[in-house]
Amino acid sequence: MTGHDIAHLGHVEIFTDRYDESLAFFINVYGLSLSAEDETSAYLRAWDDYEFHTLKLSRSDTTGVGHIGYRASSPEALERRVAAIEASGYKTHGWTEGDLGHGPAFRFEDPFGHIFEIYWETRRPDLKDDERPALKNMASRFHGRGCHPRRLDHVNLLAADVAEFRRFMETCLGSRVTEYIQLDNGRIGGCWFTVNNKTYDLACTEEHGGQQGRLHHVTYATDQREDILRAADIMLENGVHIETGPHKHAIQGTFFLYVWEPAGNRIELANAGARLILAPDWEPVCWTEAERKKGQAWGLKTIETFHTHGTPPASKN
Amino acid sequence: MTGHDIAHLGHVEIFTDRYDESLAFFINVYGLSLSAEDETSAYLRAWDDYEFHTLKLSRSDTTGVGHIGYRASSPEALERRVAAIEASGYKTHGWTEGDLGHGPAFRFEDPFGHIFEIYWETRRPDLKDDERPALKNMASRFHGRGCHPRRLDHVNLLAADVAEFRRFMETCLGSRVTEYIQLDNGRIGGCWFTVNNKTYDLACTEEHGGQQGRLHHVTYATDQREDILRAADIMLENGVHIETGPHKHAIQGTFFLYVWEPAGNRIELANAGARLILAPDWEPVCWTEAERKKGQAWGLKTIETFHTHGTPPASKN
Amino acid sequence: MTGHDIAHLGHVEIFTDRYDESLAFFINVYGLSLSAEDETSAYLRAWDDYEFHTLKLSRSDTTGVGHIGYRASSPEALERRVAAIEASGYKTHGWTEGDLGHGPAFRFEDPFGHIFEIYWETRRPDLKDDERPALKNMASRFHGRGCHPRRLDHVNLLAADVAEFRRFMETCLGSRVTEYIQLDNGRIGGCWFTVNNKTYDLACTEEHGGQQGRLHHVTYATDQREDILRAADIMLENGVHIETGPHKHAIQGTFFLYVWEPAGNRIELANAGARLILAPDWEPVCWTEAERKKGQAWGLKTIETFHTHGTPPASKN
Amino acid sequence: MTGHDIAHLGHVEIFTDRYDESLAFFINVYGLSLSAEDETSAYLRAWDDYEFHTLKLSRSDTTGVGHIGYRASSPEALERRVAAIEASGYKTHGWTEGDLGHGPAFRFEDPFGHIFEIYWETRRPDLKDDERPALKNMASRFHGRGCHPRRLDHVNLLAADVAEFRRFMETCLGSRVTEYIQLDNGRIGGCWFTVNNKTYDLACTEEHGGQQGRLHHVTYATDQREDILRAADIMLENGVHIETGPHKHAIQGTFFLYVWEPAGNRIELANAGARLILAPDWEPVCWTEAERKKGQAWGLKTIETFHTHGTPPASKN
Repeated sequence: MTGHDIAHLGHVEIFTDRYDESLAFFINVYGLSLSAEDETSAYLRAWDDYEFHTLKLSRSDTTGVGHIGYRASSPEALERRVAAIEASGYKTHGWTEGDLGHGPAFRFEDPFGHIFEIYWETRRPDLKDDERPALKNMASRFHGRGCHPRRLDHVNLLAADVAEFRRFMETCLGSRVTEYIQLDNGRIGGCWFTVNNKTYDLACTEEHGGQQGRLHHVTYATDQREDILRAADIMLENGVHIETGPHKHAIQGTFFLYVWEPAGNRIELANAGARLILAPDWEPVCWTEAERKKGQAWGLKTIETFHTHGTPPASKN
Repeated sequence: MTGHDIAHLGHVEIFTDRYDESLAFFINVYGLSLSAEDETSAYLRAWDDYEFHTLKLSRSDTTGVGHIGYRASSPEALERRVAAIEASGYKTHGWTEGDLGHGPAFRFEDPFGHIFEIYWETRRPDLKDDERPALKNMASRFHGRGCHPRRLDHVNLLAADVAEFRRFMETCLGSRVTEYIQLDNGRIGGCWFTVNNKTYDLACTEEHGGQQGRLHHVTYATDQREDILRAADIMLENGVHIETGPHKHAIQGTFFLYVWEPAGNRIELANAGARLILAPDWEPVCWTEAERKKGQAWGLKTIETFHTHGTPPASKN
Repeated sequence: MTGHDIAHLGHVEIFTDRYDESLAFFINVYGLSLSAEDETSAYLRAWDDYEFHTLKLSRSDTTGVGHIGYRASSPEALERRVAAIEASGYKTHGWTEGDLGHGPAFRFEDPFGHIFEIYWETRRPDLKDDERPALKNMASRFHGRGCHPRRLDHVNLLAADVAEFRRFMETCLGSRVTEYIQLDNGRIGGCWFTVNNKTYDLACTEEHGGQQGRLHHVTYATDQREDILRAADIMLENGVHIETGPHKHAIQGTFFLYVWEPAGNRIELANAGARLILAPDWEPVCWTEAERKKGQAWGLKTIETFHTHGTPPASKN
Repeated sequence: MTGHDIAHLGHVEIFTDRYDESLAFFINVYGLSLSAEDETSAYLRAWDDYEFHTLKLSRSDTTGVGHIGYRASSPEALERRVAAIEASGYKTHGWTEGDLGHGPAFRFEDPFGHIFEIYWETRRPDLKDDERPALKNMASRFHGRGCHPRRLDHVNLLAADVAEFRRFMETCLGSRVTEYIQLDNGRIGGCWFTVNNKTYDLACTEEHGGQQGRLHHVTYATDQREDILRAADIMLENGVHIETGPHKHAIQGTFFLYVWEPAGNRIELANAGARLILAPDWEPVCWTEAERKKGQAWGLKTIETFHTHGTPPASKN
């Protein structure tokens, strides 16, 4: 069960060329909490994320994704994974000393320019007095600020060859595919991966802009669908660009809202209801091109920018 | 990671001495679907349960729990678990041929009289034409009937010695403890277990009635908290005894509603929001007796029958 | 306070040329209850409608609206209104004996071919044993069937001259305007009316198809927004055409879902939250054409058929 | 239709002997907005309240209710009401110049020591730049702060003789009774009043403490039931005493949460769903003592303090 070597998606680093505005958005509007800040980055988490940070927001002259971190299931599992990655032939960057929020991490790269890392040692948030929860089984106090998602959910990347990306995910992380899009031309249009019981923790959809290493979106999970309806009100009142939603995805059945944070990175809020992938022999669900043309679950047509907008944009790549 | 040998709670069998009324309740009011029925039992499932049945409702002259089934992660994992159980010294019943909904199962028993089984081979529901979902990633059509929970969630048993029960769960199923109650007298008042990312799939609380093998409750998960508020209306309109709720548990933070089905078995509906146990090194949360006396999350005092009512009742045991 | 002579929108009659399918839709999918049926019509109500019927569904060789009924505030108020209508010069049809669900009604017609009636004497539903509510302050039992809206909300008509229609509503019913669309060409694009504290009970939007007497849609209110999300699932599973939504209207802020019943009449479910028009001197809200181009509250573009589809269609008018 | 002379409940003044803490509670936790503050009082409103203030929070050496303001339907209606009150024999205080939020008001008093006022001229909130709503049909921006109720809903007073209080409300305000409790001893245990389509805007329940002029609670309405579940989390995290709920009232069917603000005044959040009183001939619903003993809608027993706690407490009265 190599898939169990990796416990869960740990954090995502994204770049912003409007750091102050992006940070204000993530704290006050989106509703994450600041664990720490250094010269280059802010370390953010949702109120029930158990790790020090799940979003690293880094100052940059561009946008897009910095790296994607997955936490291993144990020190031994981490070693097994590193050995497998090294044997795989995929590009590796070797060990880093870690970051403010976790210990040593092994970095590697997919064939499309996205940097991944895996790590075991982690750090819990240092709760300030007003961050201690009334109920000790929650990671932090429910603060009620902004859209207040509960935890990091998933990241969606763009790759020129999704089938090749799939091999990378299976080989390096032991991820399994829960759903995918089979195009008429024989290509895989998109693929949804998980390393645990979540319906997905990473998605990859086909890059149509001829770019490398682009981010499609980062997503946090809300407790209820109603939280997402309220979030839409909050985005509207704060002048945030709502790209599409709220609506329900046909794929995975997730209730969603997509917005663009001030630097242009697409950010989602999602709610999967009680849906989990519990079957150890789950058969990946295949969606044909004809089926996808029906739009989202309740008929919403997929908005054009959803196929074209990724970060960094072409001019910054 | 022996815990990963077991994939998830698969089904629960409960006895009823009012079979027809219980069956009508589970189908029309609670909102499960009938996969099959034979001379002794009805095989029921929630609309998004992927297996043939998750509740086996059996005619009996008593009430309470028949057996609890867990599905293994693979044929090899099943073998490993059987070997471990046989080596453990716990009472075993050996292999059964299986049931309508699954293949061969190995049965064993906890020291308090509850029968468990583990199995690998399973069966998907035979969908009737009007049960096929519009979206192929759902197990069955969303029928909207009754309280329409989405999937089986957990079972709660009673045991005279919860610490001993805990050893049983760790040894036989590789379950891990996510939360527990530490009584002032040194005993464990209750313990919540999981084999995967769910916050719990089985709970055990202390038996105060001097009985053996009693059931506290069986629970299905709803997609949203609002579904539980609506369920309370439906229970009220159908004359079902609402024991307590809707409210939010302090332990695990689950939003809940408890009712008694016609034969007296306690049945719950629950919603955990987006809460999952993702940390591979999750530290079990300890609740003291003093903390428990504060009542549920928002202050509701635990109702007296919650401490006394289990099935079968004393006279039937 | 002539507006207070009319208490509320009482019922809407719609025609269907697929009576059996339409009736099955309204009962099983939309979730209304059948109060009675005669050779020509079915008399339907929502579970908390206090009158015998709020929807009269009539067999026809066409579709669209039959008539719109408003209930007066008292016998004297009814007399005052009849005198005002007779003095107005608008076309009158005189008194009818009433219908299964109410007493004598005075009929009159707007300049665009829609027939209205006002009445005082009404009838409560004859509750069958299984329709009696657990709580005596509800009109009927909450049945949980289909989308189970709570009460009739509003009707939307099409008229070639909305300003003229407005004069009709003010003169005949004492309605007040709560919101309206001011087009750049000086015309009124749409107007929302109420006779009480509801944000609107009737809307009129501009007819672009050169037709007379067309219906845009009929709407019932759900208790919660989440009911509308669930309704979308139910519509999807029952193969009902979802035209647009769920989303939130910019005008009036109502959360909505539009579907077409089997005969093609557009039917909505809506939730206004806690919004009421309490101000006796409410200043009508004016929306410009530029503002309307921004789409709905959260950015959804108004679907093309929303501007073109009305019933009856051109060929049947 | 004398009832129509009064448009709606306008505002409630409450006293606090912990002004700073109470004000912080109402702004940051409960989620009202500050329209103005003077030496004695803070003027607060919910985000969609159209008047300058709906809650006047006044510094005092005691707690409880200062006065209750109702807005008339027109200048003429105000005159008619004043004449009727003066003719009624109830105690009058005459005209006041008004307050920060409204024009001249006529004050009078019920036989149990509560001061009422009626007024016509009112004032809209002065919106700061960051309070302007994205949608012009809302009174202010949806701020998402605290529990963010949408509008003032109702006030509940205590009176030694509810039947006598009922005569006062009918005579002075033209209120109608929508529901009431008939005690076995022939007395009226409680009475729910409305002047418009709201199910109630004022309730009066029997005073058991031998006090005069006490307040039972003040209530604001949330848009959705889910807002109240979230509010319970927010109250919990802020150390606010949750007295009872969330649960659903049997009387009126309102979903509720009761807390005590820092000075001890009981404050409610409520959601009535889509329920309105539309029938002009609504027959008041009578609840017997036996029916009330069943508890709230889903079985919650009424908490003891609900019968005893009012403000000001005995020692301060």
